Amino acid sequence: MAEPKENALMEKIVSLCKRRGFIFQSSEIYGGINGFWDYGPLGAELKRNVKELWWNDMIRQRDDVAGLEATIIMHPQIWKASGHVDTFSDPMIDCKTCKGRFRADQTNEIPCPQKPSQMVSECHGEKTAPRAFNLMFKTCVGPVESEDNVAYLRPETAQAIFAQFKNVLETSRQKVPFGIAQVGKAFRNEVTPRNYTFRSREFEQMELEFFIKPDEVVEAISGKVANAAEAFGRADLPVGQDMQQRVPTTPQADWGWEAWHKYWVEERIGFYEGIGLPRTTLEEYWQKPEELAHYARACVDILFKFPFGTQELEGIAARSDFDLSQHERFSGKPMGVFDEELRTAWVKLPKEKQGELWRRYYENRKKYLVKMGVEAEPAAKDATEDANGLAKGQYIPHVIEPSAGVDRLILALICNAYSEVIETDDKGKSETRVIMKFHPRVAPIKVGVMPLLKNKPELVKKAIEVRDRLRPWMNVFYDDAGSIGRRYARQDEAGTPFCVTIDFDTLGEKPELKDTVTIRYRDDGRQERLAFGELLNWLLPKIR
Amino acid sequence: MAEPKENALMEKIVSLCKRRGFIFQSSEIYGGINGFWDYGPLGAELKRNVKELWWNDMIRQRDDVAGLEATIIMHPQIWKASGHVDTFSDPMIDCKTCKGRFRADQTNEIPCPQKPSQMVSECHGEKTAPRAFNLMFKTCVGPVESEDNVAYLRPETAQAIFAQFKNVLETSRQKVPFGIAQVGKAFRNEVTPRNYTFRSREFEQMELEFFIKPDEVVEAISGKVANAAEAFGRADLPVGQDMQQRVPTTPQADWGWEAWHKYWVEERIGFYEGIGLPRTTLEEYWQKPEELAHYARACVDILFKFPFGTQELEGIAARSDFDLSQHERFSGKPMGVFDEELRTAWVKLPKEKQGELWRRYYENRKKYLVKMGVEAEPAAKDATEDANGLAKGQYIPHVIEPSAGVDRLILALICNAYSEVIETDDKGKSETRVIMKFHPRVAPIKVGVMPLLKNKPELVKKAIEVRDRLRPWMNVFYDDAGSIGRRYARQDEAGTPFCVTIDFDTLGEKPELKDTVTIRYRDDGRQERLAFGELLNWLLPKIR
Repeated sequence: MAEPKENALMEKIVSLCKRRGFIFQSSEIYGGINGFWDYGPLGAELKRNVKELWWNDMIRQRDDVAGLEATIIMHPQIWKASGHVDTFSDPMIDCKTCKGRFRADQTNEIPCPQKPSQMVSECHGEKTAPRAFNLMFKTCVGPVESEDNVAYLRPETAQAIFAQFKNVLETSRQKVPFGIAQVGKAFRNEVTPRNYTFRSREFEQMELEFFIKPDEVVEAISGKVANAAEAFGRADLPVGQDMQQRVPTTPQADWGWEAWHKYWVEERIGFYEGIGLPRTTLEEYWQKPEELAHYARACVDILFKFPFGTQELEGIAARSDFDLSQHERFSGKPMGVFDEELRTAWVKLPKEKQGELWRRYYENRKKYLVKMGVEAEPAAKDATEDANGLAKGQYIPHVIEPSAGVDRLILALICNAYSEVIETDDKGKSETRVIMKFHPRVAPIKVGVMPLLKNKPELVKKAIEVRDRLRPWMNVFYDDAGSIGRRYARQDEAGTPFCVTIDFDTLGEKPELKDTVTIRYRDDGRQERLAFGELLNWLLPKIR
Repeated sequence: MAEPKENALMEKIVSLCKRRGFIFQSSEIYGGINGFWDYGPLGAELKRNVKELWWNDMIRQRDDVAGLEATIIMHPQIWKASGHVDTFSDPMIDCKTCKGRFRADQTNEIPCPQKPSQMVSECHGEKTAPRAFNLMFKTCVGPVESEDNVAYLRPETAQAIFAQFKNVLETSRQKVPFGIAQVGKAFRNEVTPRNYTFRSREFEQMELEFFIKPDEVVEAISGKVANAAEAFGRADLPVGQDMQQRVPTTPQADWGWEAWHKYWVEERIGFYEGIGLPRTTLEEYWQKPEELAHYARACVDILFKFPFGTQELEGIAARSDFDLSQHERFSGKPMGVFDEELRTAWVKLPKEKQGELWRRYYENRKKYLVKMGVEAEPAAKDATEDANGLAKGQYIPHVIEPSAGVDRLILALICNAYSEVIETDDKGKSETRVIMKFHPRVAPIKVGVMPLLKNKPELVKKAIEVRDRLRPWMNVFYDDAGSIGRRYARQDEAGTPFCVTIDFDTLGEKPELKDTVTIRYRDDGRQERLAFGELLNWLLPKIR
């Protein structure tokens, strides 16, 4: 299996990940399987922490987002509605000579399997015209293998949220604006998995679909629609550009889609900063109008400066009402909501205003239907019906989608944490050591607990007491093997922010230090003493 | 999609789960997909809590277990080694007349699709002989669909642990005895998914593989092997029978496989009791010798009394060294460990003892190899080599496997929590209410926070203060809509163990009650007052 050789730093990171049990090749003893990676003991803890922090931030700390855990295999019709069956594909060509299959846009970069000195585009093999190769993994559900039983491994977690939108709405006591969030595995049969775990075939996503009122509805209720600059109280707010400072604010009833979109960009950047990715390592990329998917009104990519290039961690898209509309059309089930506030507000609007909002809503609906291939006449009829719903308090919510990849975030955290120190010992021998400077909130192990010596039962007993006191509250690594310096170095490589050492002073050798322990900081090796009784309360706020 | 109609209680539970957002049919708006279920907002929280408690109990609270998070798609050779490709199947017959495919052992129970008044076994359709139908979902990895690229969705999480055994051993500073644990999705293309979420096609497992020394190695090092009765200090310990009380104990160096197996049975029952399944709802089933898989030395099923019957939650198997041996043979990579203690102890053993242990180890290895189809002569040669390893401190660890199903555990917790009360109001009208009596540790919401009235800003302000104080520490549901009685009832249905109400006394209407809140208990509706400042410390130990 190929590992990225883009640069020396990346090689060191890959080697550290393997050596310390962050990341292993899947099925390594069988030669690996291209595009699949396992997380070892430290990696699994790191990943759990990140997913837990996201879930907490997005769901548990808010009143307006509900969680969901849906299946990976769903009804195949979902992927017709979403467009994945028809368009989620790469163009491929087959070589009739060598029987190889290649990405049509990469034939200049891929060596010919039979004559590697030439690229595929240069060799004499007879090639087919490019054909679409769908990136969804296919399987069959039920005992009979047939086209009727084909199902797909989900290529994203988002669609389950749309499919269950009404169930969640009806059971969770939420009202628009509100969101549904999900964490889970997704699969894409990438032709060329690459950049270590960055682009793999099995990966995990953390996705929020945040449902909002269409601007026409906001205007009907609030009399106006606040754009991003107004919403954030700053006329100078640069929408469509990278901002070097977060502008936090509280959602308001008069926010339109632009303000909500900006809000989620700010929230998500705040999340990354809060788990230890400095603002300087991140970039915002505002997609240009011509780059946007046809249904999208805006999309911001949050990028991280990886050693192999600046690449996307998360996309935050304003997707209009495309997704719910598609599922309404394909399932035949109504996906709209009823909004008492809208109904009440509508009757109080001047006729002229009603007409104006009706017309805008109608135009948007008709544009969508025509784009999806509906003939002009039925499209106009359906759009009329949709716009007539406004007076009854009915509409299809729009959605803002912050969609993050877990594995690339883990890789970003690892790359960002990686640092080296060169240390010279008494004999003048120097050694390069790795320190993984994870933010304590994501660090796999929060604290290493160590008796100074293994063969002194009083020290060991006290150290175990410390371990057992801390363990119910955090992940503790107890280590009594080897010199204390080696043990510190091991925790530095694991990214453990604090070590606690129990020595003879703890036992009262110096009476004034009795029942104190040594705290050692990972990042600078600094040490200080702390009373055993204060330890838990000292640590807790630092790791949460 | 068929829902179980086994009994009225089960119907009520299914209806509650849908109504309150614990469990939805996957892809419901498209008519569902048989054998797939989604977890709604409350179900997702419940499931997260259970998985987190397991991970904490099995890994973070122990020194001797490391975590792993491996991929669902692995190298297909893994499933050759494990035996799943060849033997993980149900016998099926095809009907040439109606083109249906049926489980050969269920033809007496399944109606003929063309003439439902008859069972398949009675109808006149021409049937094939039974053929093995493999239960693994198949897919293809890479751009070419061919037999060479076939891969499977894992039917269990265990095999990744064996495949990564050496990587974890080498990076985690563990020594045998130690374990590797994993939580994750698994897939089985069940012919007949049934009993609601109990037997589904996509499910989640929590598996531990706990690696131990073979008994011969224990004996070489400790001079003896403690069996379960000795290990647990009770000559009357009934091994192979259901025990009505847990016997906790601390692992010792002289434990053989029988003691370790018993230990994990006790640990796991303790886990279930600790999350609210009373001992009386559980049963142990010790498999009879003739029921055991050929490599297993013992297997205990922990069963729960579901409304549709007493069914397995978890199996705890003593699997000998079968798994690591298989992967050693199929991958060609050594899976044994080096044990300094064994090497040191071996040279001190009397020649006679060495010979006896060598012989026992040799016999076990040879028996395994012959069973796996190796001819007697090469088997004897390989077994000799294996047994010669003892003197060098080398052996292949044995394994104890506690393997639990998450979804069936969630269903057990829901069934166990479900209870009804009949309440009669002032006008004599009676109503049946559901109370979900979850243990606070697993309850989706830990506390409901409510201002007595929505339209009193002082009450709302104080309630939001309480919410924000508790929220960093637990899942809080803030509710200000409807009568306080309706709000309590909603939290009872969600299984929220405590509600906190902010009323005029909180604001100082009765000066002696200023800054106190009402705590209301879910299970009996009891109420008491507590100072706001004490609330967090009062709640924390109850929910952890």
